[in-house]
Amino acid sequence: MRRFKLLLEYDGCAYAGWQRQLNAMSVQQRVEEALRRLTGEGELTITGASRTDAGVHALGQTAHFDSDTAIPAEKLSFALNTLLPDDIRVRHSQEVSISFHARFSAIGKEYRYWYYAHPHASALYRNLSWHVIYPLDLEKMRREAMTMLGTHDFAPFAASGSVVKDTRRTVDAISLSEAGPFIELRVHGNGFLYNMVRILAGTLAQVGSGKRAPGAIERALETGSRLELGATAPPQGLTLLRVDYPEELCLPPT
Amino acid sequence: MRRFKLLLEYDGCAYAGWQRQLNAMSVQQRVEEALRRLTGEGELTITGASRTDAGVHALGQTAHFDSDTAIPAEKLSFALNTLLPDDIRVRHSQEVSISFHARFSAIGKEYRYWYYAHPHASALYRNLSWHVIYPLDLEKMRREAMTMLGTHDFAPFAASGSVVKDTRRTVDAISLSEAGPFIELRVHGNGFLYNMVRILAGTLAQVGSGKRAPGAIERALETGSRLELGATAPPQGLTLLRVDYPEELCLPPT
Repeated sequence: MRRFKLLLEYDGCAYAGWQRQLNAMSVQQRVEEALRRLTGEGELTITGASRTDAGVHALGQTAHFDSDTAIPAEKLSFALNTLLPDDIRVRHSQEVSISFHARFSAIGKEYRYWYYAHPHASALYRNLSWHVIYPLDLEKMRREAMTMLGTHDFAPFAASGSVVKDTRRTVDAISLSEAGPFIELRVHGNGFLYNMVRILAGTLAQVGSGKRAPGAIERALETGSRLELGATAPPQGLTLLRVDYPEELCLPPT
Repeated sequence: MRRFKLLLEYDGCAYAGWQRQLNAMSVQQRVEEALRRLTGEGELTITGASRTDAGVHALGQTAHFDSDTAIPAEKLSFALNTLLPDDIRVRHSQEVSISFHARFSAIGKEYRYWYYAHPHASALYRNLSWHVIYPLDLEKMRREAMTMLGTHDFAPFAASGSVVKDTRRTVDAISLSEAGPFIELRVHGNGFLYNMVRILAGTLAQVGSGKRAPGAIERALETGSRLELGATAPPQGLTLLRVDYPEELCLPPT
């Protein structure tokens, strides 16, 4: 049995999210179906780094699986792409040490969120951005975003019903940039609570449009109250860009 | 009767192109249907600046129509967007002089073409780019592209069966830039023959990948032979960015 790592890109529009579900199609199911067909291993399952939600996209989701396949690791991506629908692509495949785990070995993640701030929605980018009809003040959003930096108990940023016990995370990079009607938020940290980036994106939009007073994030982190933050921003603006691992874990076994 | 100008954005994926057709859905038909419903004028037709092909996108298609509607010109965009499918948006609406004509008054157009050069296709941008599996040499493409500049008889760039008589056009700006696996071609001119930008994009890809010797465009312009050029690049990489008009024609009638 060998362990393999996949780098995955997908358009989340048509899926009920990453995770396999009983009554809806997931990205995980599609990739598992392709892998089972390719290897003939009917019990094969894959583990993803991040359980992206329905409608959320990925350019750098990472997953692992174990298999006895004789297919060379670097050929797996090409073989899988012939079996996958065109809204899911394997960008890279490799063999890794059996101690690599897509979720538990991850030491960092980067997400981006795209706002489209214009009186009219975008036709061409409607599935890649959140249409915000009111003007957004980029400088206000930047100042607010900076207060996310550092190690905090991000409990108020966790979706209600979340079962994670340790809600401390470190955000080590955050930036906002503008191109025409688009605003791009990028955030990197050692991990994110369920819905954390979308609650952040929703809060920044409210501060940027003047619907919420600046300092909302600081107040939420101080008081622990979800009520200090904005509504969860819609999924289609969010893309998982990258998952980081310790380099030594990504080397093929010797 | 007053004349109105619309700035239109659309995702070309679901349409048989701009122009109304008997047996397939076009962008023109969708916009006309919305306008007829809005104004109650059953014979209303619109004229577009560019007859974009099936699968080609637009961020700045321009169209005009005549109407007796009492709806204020600047409100038309909002009203139309409530009636249009979400892959077509009116970005701006205004009243213009009756001498404005979307097609005949146009003095310039800008297009972009997106290549995605990577061994694996993109899942997220599959409908916005042409997947080229071989590496592209950006510098070679740039040198080749520069030979488009100036006023030439672009007859070899016209799709076969084209009925245009005067095939002289002026290309006054062309550029190529790179971002990760993407290469963006931008080209501006006083007008383009049918399929001209897609034949250009296909030729640059062949020169950039070494499948065709540099100098192809110069040879084609010299000899007039279509055979010197590459295959027509697929439509989904192409987006009409902008149509230019003399400023005085875009003022409301006084």
